[in-house]
Amino acid sequence: MRHEIARRSGVGFELREGQTLTVYDPRGEQVADLLAYNRADIREVISSGRTLDYASKLFIGVGDPLYSNRSNVMLDIVSDSVGRHDFLLTPCSKDTFRIIYGDDAPHHGCFGNLERALAPWGVEPDMIPTAFNCFMNVSVDFETGALSVDPPRSKAGDHIAFVARMDLIIGLTACSALQSNNGSFKPIEYEISG
Amino acid sequence: MRHEIARRSGVGFELREGQTLTVYDPRGEQVADLLAYNRADIREVISSGRTLDYASKLFIGVGDPLYSNRSNVMLDIVSDSVGRHDFLLTPCSKDTFRIIYGDDAPHHGCFGNLERALAPWGVEPDMIPTAFNCFMNVSVDFETGALSVDPPRSKAGDHIAFVARMDLIIGLTACSALQSNNGSFKPIEYEISG
Repeated sequence: MRHEIARRSGVGFELREGQTLTVYDPRGEQVADLLAYNRADIREVISSGRTLDYASKLFIGVGDPLYSNRSNVMLDIVSDSVGRHDFLLTPCSKDTFRIIYGDDAPHHGCFGNLERALAPWGVEPDMIPTAFNCFMNVSVDFETGALSVDPPRSKAGDHIAFVARMDLIIGLTACSALQSNNGSFKPIEYEISG
Repeated sequence: MRHEIARRSGVGFELREGQTLTVYDPRGEQVADLLAYNRADIREVISSGRTLDYASKLFIGVGDPLYSNRSNVMLDIVSDSVGRHDFLLTPCSKDTFRIIYGDDAPHHGCFGNLERALAPWGVEPDMIPTAFNCFMNVSVDFETGALSVDPPRSKAGDHIAFVARMDLIIGLTACSALQSNNGSFKPIEYEISG
């Protein structure tokens, strides 16, 4: 059964060890920020730095484990119809919109949505790290290191699927930043199986 | 007055708002992992994801602010004789040496050194994020995203200097990973002024 995450919103849910989480982009060119916490101890959380270090690459895909800050495998990517996701940039937030977009009355962003969605499990804002950004398309200039946030490569119906390697609390959003999703806000869908 | 950080070790100290921290590579091709916490509330910590996002580039240098997880500026880079540092990879640790190097009896690494150095201020291991890795030379393949850890570009006597924008607790190491420093462990030096 597929669930919808409405535009510019987010959800929190539990995922048991062995279960599969599939994230769908129902309309194409949308981004979903994904966070994972150890259900038994929320101080253990998904880690971009450890994952990129152990994979020795920036673009994470099928076969790559997503590690925690304690170097345990939290999730494995088992299926992916897109092939480009981001694990560099933090969830968009009031500060993102203020600093990058210059907004006077900024939206609370994925950060605010994750904060609200994860509060029932005791996750505090300071415990929200860099998320795994499904479908987000960030390129790097080899010489200068300049980052460009390009339109996602995902087309309507594309997906990425993860298997949980421990009991997890998941935070998942339909991204709120215009730059990430080529200028329009769209929903995200997800399914839990197993 | 310059202080030495012995090979494969680390230190913790306080840096007041407005003070300058200069990190020297006295022998060349050595790496120093730098962490910063808000002295008034250690839950506020240096953030790779926010810094790279707001700078829109991977290679951070003179003029770039180092942001916290609360999007406040913690440090500004004011001087740099090298021009290439890393803000992607986590401090080397027992797990790094086990997973990447295949060591049976792994060294505790920069992570262990930072853990010990920062414990007096109440910093717990789970609160250690991706560090700003002074002089670390990580390249990215534009197409594949492959990361390569190359010898630092720093020569004997090179430095990078930071000005504190709030009262901080600093963790700083002389790196323990062979790959980062071209195969030999060397000391790091630092100086506080202002």
